[in-house]
Amino acid sequence: MEFSLGVDDILKKLSDAEVHGNSIIQDINGIASLKNAQEGDLSFLSNPKYKSEVKSSLATFILLPLDFHEEPKEGQVFIKTKNPSQALANVCRLIQSILFEGIPVGVHDTAFVHESAVLESGVCIGPFSYIGSNVKIGKNTIVESHCYVGEKVIVGENTHFHPGCKILSLSEVGNGVVLNSGVVVGSEGYGFEQVGSFHEKIPHLGKVVIEDDVEIGANTCIDRARLEATIIGAGSKIDNLVQIGHNVRIGKGCLIVAQVGIAGSVEFEDGVIVGGQAGFAGHLKVGKGAKIAGQAGITKDVPPDAYLKGNPAIPIQLAHKIAVLQRKLPDLFKRIAQEPDKK
Amino acid sequence: MEFSLGVDDILKKLSDAEVHGNSIIQDINGIASLKNAQEGDLSFLSNPKYKSEVKSSLATFILLPLDFHEEPKEGQVFIKTKNPSQALANVCRLIQSILFEGIPVGVHDTAFVHESAVLESGVCIGPFSYIGSNVKIGKNTIVESHCYVGEKVIVGENTHFHPGCKILSLSEVGNGVVLNSGVVVGSEGYGFEQVGSFHEKIPHLGKVVIEDDVEIGANTCIDRARLEATIIGAGSKIDNLVQIGHNVRIGKGCLIVAQVGIAGSVEFEDGVIVGGQAGFAGHLKVGKGAKIAGQAGITKDVPPDAYLKGNPAIPIQLAHKIAVLQRKLPDLFKRIAQEPDKK
Amino acid sequence: MEFSLGVDDILKKLSDAEVHGNSIIQDINGIASLKNAQEGDLSFLSNPKYKSEVKSSLATFILLPLDFHEEPKEGQVFIKTKNPSQALANVCRLIQSILFEGIPVGVHDTAFVHESAVLESGVCIGPFSYIGSNVKIGKNTIVESHCYVGEKVIVGENTHFHPGCKILSLSEVGNGVVLNSGVVVGSEGYGFEQVGSFHEKIPHLGKVVIEDDVEIGANTCIDRARLEATIIGAGSKIDNLVQIGHNVRIGKGCLIVAQVGIAGSVEFEDGVIVGGQAGFAGHLKVGKGAKIAGQAGITKDVPPDAYLKGNPAIPIQLAHKIAVLQRKLPDLFKRIAQEPDKK
Repeated sequence: MEFSLGVDDILKKLSDAEVHGNSIIQDINGIASLKNAQEGDLSFLSNPKYKSEVKSSLATFILLPLDFHEEPKEGQVFIKTKNPSQALANVCRLIQSILFEGIPVGVHDTAFVHESAVLESGVCIGPFSYIGSNVKIGKNTIVESHCYVGEKVIVGENTHFHPGCKILSLSEVGNGVVLNSGVVVGSEGYGFEQVGSFHEKIPHLGKVVIEDDVEIGANTCIDRARLEATIIGAGSKIDNLVQIGHNVRIGKGCLIVAQVGIAGSVEFEDGVIVGGQAGFAGHLKVGKGAKIAGQAGITKDVPPDAYLKGNPAIPIQLAHKIAVLQRKLPDLFKRIAQEPDKK
Repeated sequence: MEFSLGVDDILKKLSDAEVHGNSIIQDINGIASLKNAQEGDLSFLSNPKYKSEVKSSLATFILLPLDFHEEPKEGQVFIKTKNPSQALANVCRLIQSILFEGIPVGVHDTAFVHESAVLESGVCIGPFSYIGSNVKIGKNTIVESHCYVGEKVIVGENTHFHPGCKILSLSEVGNGVVLNSGVVVGSEGYGFEQVGSFHEKIPHLGKVVIEDDVEIGANTCIDRARLEATIIGAGSKIDNLVQIGHNVRIGKGCLIVAQVGIAGSVEFEDGVIVGGQAGFAGHLKVGKGAKIAGQAGITKDVPPDAYLKGNPAIPIQLAHKIAVLQRKLPDLFKRIAQEPDKK
Repeated sequence: MEFSLGVDDILKKLSDAEVHGNSIIQDINGIASLKNAQEGDLSFLSNPKYKSEVKSSLATFILLPLDFHEEPKEGQVFIKTKNPSQALANVCRLIQSILFEGIPVGVHDTAFVHESAVLESGVCIGPFSYIGSNVKIGKNTIVESHCYVGEKVIVGENTHFHPGCKILSLSEVGNGVVLNSGVVVGSEGYGFEQVGSFHEKIPHLGKVVIEDDVEIGANTCIDRARLEATIIGAGSKIDNLVQIGHNVRIGKGCLIVAQVGIAGSVEFEDGVIVGGQAGFAGHLKVGKGAKIAGQAGITKDVPPDAYLKGNPAIPIQLAHKIAVLQRKLPDLFKRIAQEPDKK
């Protein structure tokens, strides 16, 4: 990261900031964790467990919560705000606008937009992107390079498609959505009917609906529904290389970590959290707030607030207990072998 | 789904249809499951286990098998055919042609076709697609946007590449093949030879052969062989995000669900079925008709018709029995601890 | 593979070659393993364990090590070199240049290179590729079709991006690197802070650094760091569909097989080897030379040279022992049930 930003420019973005201490350094030259920060850097305390690191940090500027009561060292500036995480996000956005030119508003010379497509104000269409017939794209949405937006796709405002996303026909994407590079939305579902020894394709005429504020990781795939809709609920965050089958319904505010696989017609209620590489068999229901550990294999409905691990999945505390006992199996068998056989 | 289609247009497509009952409604406005269908919708009975849902369905039109002997309600039309699934597929294809403009025959203005490439009649080349030197593409094949078809690739008839497929040099793709978005065919195999502490690349000069009627899911990768061919047998269906290593040979009519990983030189005989996220170590042979449960880890040859689960994989019934007994380990250890030690 | 290559052309590439025997065949028409080779083919002995296959091989030409002391059959030619593997690689490269036209030096008519980008001599930019502002690309590097190289990306010499790679802004890629099709470098990390029931995105301003001689498989994703760098160490080889989270540091000479998932801030020391589909929870350290079996789930630090398997992961020998004993659990429970209860 190479940039230089006046501390005053930052303070302008943080309306509620209280400044403590002062420094002859007036420019921020980097941003780093408390531990790694150097003179001239901005750092931050977003998690109270790192409180003790503030004292030894070399950062010249530190974002802190209002209830942090220690005093800065000589030449150090404490910037206190109600929400240092949000303040950091604001500062990062400012730095981002300095670091990157970004993609200019309008349609790149090499892009292709179908004459029947409607782009609202502030939309960016990047190089080599294709916008199909009857597409609608809302205000300030960014479509980066090499994206495909198929027929009749509807996209909301302030949404961001990174390079190489494929949003296939009929898909509906909300406001404030982020699709990382290589995401495929609306691929054909894996549905075949066995006719003798041949597997005949079941046509998929449904669509995918991605609600507001969803973020989806690189190269993740979401299949279209057979007839109705595959739905990703508002505010859910999906990591890279995840597979979401046809007719799946993900609730609101769910977290799905990398390489999870969810087979067709599974339904997640709100707030479900799934660790990496877990898998779900088809047609299951996962209750509100349930947690699924990484690599778990789920083959039955999951009740609300359950926390499961393993394949077959069992309550996590039982799984941990069994894991400990399994390591004692060699001893157990040895001991049993030494007993006289009483049969 | 928004469309309107005269019921007569559908009947024309179903040569063997017997119509029972009648309705003042003459247009189909939607297509849905028996349970979700509304007035004006077309529904269908493809699986006999849903027979009881026919009675309560609100669908105006229902596709049924010839041996369905109940009578329609007032204002309801039963359309009986020998094979309702196939009839449904035909209707869906008709609806598809109404819902979507599709991609026009010919080469899109923004596409690039090498002068030495040969395209037969009815071929579509979508926007920003590249067709390399000495490529041959058969009749009515559709190459959608952002596809790369490398040097000397040979593609059959009626094949469909969705947006963003990369078919690398020398690959051979048959007739009636479907590649979903982001599929990579012909990537370099993962083969390295250790030279001291350095891993030297083994060049891969082989190819990938995809036989007729194969379907491959989004973002799946198939590596080229080292010298000969990686082969996907006719009629096999592969889901999204699957990894197929170099020199693998998949038999005919296999089903491979999402996120399965198959290491180099594995050989599947015909009709093998693999659940999601299962993994296969290199150089194994999997016998005809074998079934592998999701998340299984296969490290040894699998005999024909075996049904395995777990890692290490064992017969599924034994795996289920062990899973039950594992949950009893805490009790077992408690009980053993209470016994007087007889050593 | 269809080609014909004079044996003399090959001998010119192998400066230290000793030729034994002779044949009226002067052209090589194929290249195959000792077992599969036919008359007119070139074969090779790279692994001593196949030594016995030399005798029965039908290959006309065989690459052998200097210490191979048997004599060729009539009409067969032995070509002895210090390093037959390397000799084979040289020959394969020669065949490659005959089999494929390759991508010509320069910028393809359909590509777009920003005016501020600097391309050194011998660089190839393929069709529909985009090179962003302030990008630098070193000598003889090949960027194939449909690649995106974002703002301020720096790429070394003799590097090869296969079709459809997305190298996002700020990334640094070394010399002799190979990225297979569909690789994403620099996607946003999966980092969110919970604010009430909402998950707020943590901005990611960091970058990805890929050191020299790294190879990365198709559709693999590497997330950018939050503030600093995600690093892939020199000579490491990563297979297809692998997930590498933000702030991960992979050491030098590591081997990571397909579909492995590595969560944020994990650190691998040098020479770590990971089997397919294994997963790593965040913030772990994996010691030098450690081996992790396929599908293992790592949730704790791994000491150097450990060899672990399973989830939770345990030393592989213990894992094998437990796997054997688990299969005896049905017998154990049966036997215990038959004992008189001594409680």
